[in-house]
Amino acid sequence: MNKNRLEAFSDGVLAIVITIMVLELRVPPEPSWNGLLSVLPTFLSYLLSFVYVGIYWNNHHHMIHLADRVNGAILWANLHLLFWLSLFPFSTRWMDESGFAQVPVLAYGFNLLCAAVAYFVLQQSLIRQQGRQGALAQALGRDWKGKTSPLIYLAGLGLCFVQPLLAVATYTVVALIWLVPDRRVEHFVIRAQQGPPG
Amino acid sequence: MNKNRLEAFSDGVLAIVITIMVLELRVPPEPSWNGLLSVLPTFLSYLLSFVYVGIYWNNHHHMIHLADRVNGAILWANLHLLFWLSLFPFSTRWMDESGFAQVPVLAYGFNLLCAAVAYFVLQQSLIRQQGRQGALAQALGRDWKGKTSPLIYLAGLGLCFVQPLLAVATYTVVALIWLVPDRRVEHFVIRAQQGPPG
Amino acid sequence: MNKNRLEAFSDGVLAIVITIMVLELRVPPEPSWNGLLSVLPTFLSYLLSFVYVGIYWNNHHHMIHLADRVNGAILWANLHLLFWLSLFPFSTRWMDESGFAQVPVLAYGFNLLCAAVAYFVLQQSLIRQQGRQGALAQALGRDWKGKTSPLIYLAGLGLCFVQPLLAVATYTVVALIWLVPDRRVEHFVIRAQQGPPG
Amino acid sequence: MNKNRLEAFSDGVLAIVITIMVLELRVPPEPSWNGLLSVLPTFLSYLLSFVYVGIYWNNHHHMIHLADRVNGAILWANLHLLFWLSLFPFSTRWMDESGFAQVPVLAYGFNLLCAAVAYFVLQQSLIRQQGRQGALAQALGRDWKGKTSPLIYLAGLGLCFVQPLLAVATYTVVALIWLVPDRRVEHFVIRAQQGPPG
Repeated sequence: MNKNRLEAFSDGVLAIVITIMVLELRVPPEPSWNGLLSVLPTFLSYLLSFVYVGIYWNNHHHMIHLADRVNGAILWANLHLLFWLSLFPFSTRWMDESGFAQVPVLAYGFNLLCAAVAYFVLQQSLIRQQGRQGALAQALGRDWKGKTSPLIYLAGLGLCFVQPLLAVATYTVVALIWLVPDRRVEHFVIRAQQGPPG
Repeated sequence: MNKNRLEAFSDGVLAIVITIMVLELRVPPEPSWNGLLSVLPTFLSYLLSFVYVGIYWNNHHHMIHLADRVNGAILWANLHLLFWLSLFPFSTRWMDESGFAQVPVLAYGFNLLCAAVAYFVLQQSLIRQQGRQGALAQALGRDWKGKTSPLIYLAGLGLCFVQPLLAVATYTVVALIWLVPDRRVEHFVIRAQQGPPG
Repeated sequence: MNKNRLEAFSDGVLAIVITIMVLELRVPPEPSWNGLLSVLPTFLSYLLSFVYVGIYWNNHHHMIHLADRVNGAILWANLHLLFWLSLFPFSTRWMDESGFAQVPVLAYGFNLLCAAVAYFVLQQSLIRQQGRQGALAQALGRDWKGKTSPLIYLAGLGLCFVQPLLAVATYTVVALIWLVPDRRVEHFVIRAQQGPPG
Repeated sequence: MNKNRLEAFSDGVLAIVITIMVLELRVPPEPSWNGLLSVLPTFLSYLLSFVYVGIYWNNHHHMIHLADRVNGAILWANLHLLFWLSLFPFSTRWMDESGFAQVPVLAYGFNLLCAAVAYFVLQQSLIRQQGRQGALAQALGRDWKGKTSPLIYLAGLGLCFVQPLLAVATYTVVALIWLVPDRRVEHFVIRAQQGPPG
């Protein structure tokens, strides 16, 4: 079974999630600079979620690129990831409308954590299907980003009980860590195309 | 006529249906644990529909993979299936907003039944075009899942008149039956690629 | 320039138009059979528009299949068609919410007419690029459906001034005429693949 | 890394942006000619944004067609462009609902300017990856349209302080300049396929 349709379906879902999220931006209450300023927090929280979906799309793109074929387990692991990503507009909206209250900020962080875990599960299914010597396992190496992110999310969830805005800052840090494109995979692909060194 | 565009269009429609359904989740009325709890039934009914669309996408993927070419009848059988699937967000929302009242739960079950029948009709058009000896007919074998599901839906529709929540439980059972990916087709594909046994 | 991306973009737009249209179905005002009955006219007008978008997707699929390459003029002719198709949810909603009043039924018919004209323009651009001896011109032959439909729409627009429901019936007739898949193109493709007769 | 998925994802986002924008058209307040007339300014501002998204899709199509491969920087430059394009429905709606007030018209023009700059950045990343002698750099030549547009947008932003409608007219002029399809690239492709002259 080839991977084209898994890519196409994931692209479709992610394209809708990323677009609808920005579409939910409410029009400012008045046509003035103050009106525009009043939607700035909304704008920034949507920007954060946009960047998150962008990161997932980017990494998904790299990961599937190195995969060979897909099976039933992989299809469901992918749908599981898409489920959590599709909740981003919901948790973003709640966090924003509540003015960054504790429970919604916890829910947003929990959503980020679930997406990270679902991504990890998908990655493991792909590696299992391809073998430890496969291109994906080699390219990921020790995968410190993938292993560190859930820990930082957990720290963020804890910080919610101190000050929700600190939690939002923590979530932003994870985004910044990932924003640096995953050069490991990219370098691996280039090296593989050039043949083994030496 | 090749099948790529039928796949692409179906992927597009299913991606939208699955995404928009989750987007319809209302933000909890208050930013608290109670607020979150109050949207739990909504969340679970959306989860059920998400899983259903996932199952259809998964099976559609396997089925079209084994098809050769498409003709006008197949294109319309596919649009017919997409029509019933596209009604899922509508019937899910009604069932949920009514607090699982009798008529909306009946309507939801009827929608599931129509989608199952439409899927069966599409499958038959593909088999007819390919012949009884074709890969799809061989892979489906006796198709007990496809033949049993409508009967269970009918039982669920009957149970609505006793207690709507029993009907919802019945619909969930069908989802669980299908959640096990259709290994028949998958095994068939692997066997076909390895050549005939013996 | 190849035609893959034109197909992909058109599929995307049509998938969204067809799905969002059905999503706009309002939940019945009460969870009862009467509630369901009260949304029946809405349901039927959405069904009509769903079938129309399905017909356009189907014919677009056949037409582009026979095209060779695309140029700037064809890309814009295609966007022009998509523009009118994307207005279907708007004109359907207005017609339905007004209870099939004269002006909205006129607007709906005008939208259908513009889409038909835009389709014809796109077809002509494709034929011009390919030449009169090309596969598309040959397959279309005298194109009586494409030439008759605008006339029937015009008749429907006239009937609006007598009784809007007669106009809706007229629009339905055009849909039924097209619902028969365009066998001309399909036959031509099959014949072309089998080689010339004799 | 190949460019197919970048195209597919961009097509998905642009298809959603262009469709949702038209879907936001409000149904006229009454089912009459006056009702239809009252939504005319809304209709025209959506038409302008539809044409803008169409222009971007068209140019994006041509540009990526000439690109070879994509890297992480290009993926993010593309997401950056999609971000600004995805804000079009928001800024269009605000401009329209405010009755073309000064600040919303400024915001709309700023959105157009940011999209133009993001497009330029994406173009530069593609040229850098391909080299100055690459097909894209050759095809673009002096790129007077790309370099003039931001200046006209800036002029439009200035005119907002005189009369917002003049600014809208200025934005329309840029759309008209681009509406002429980018024949440079098209001619280059045709020439390249015919081999070098002489």
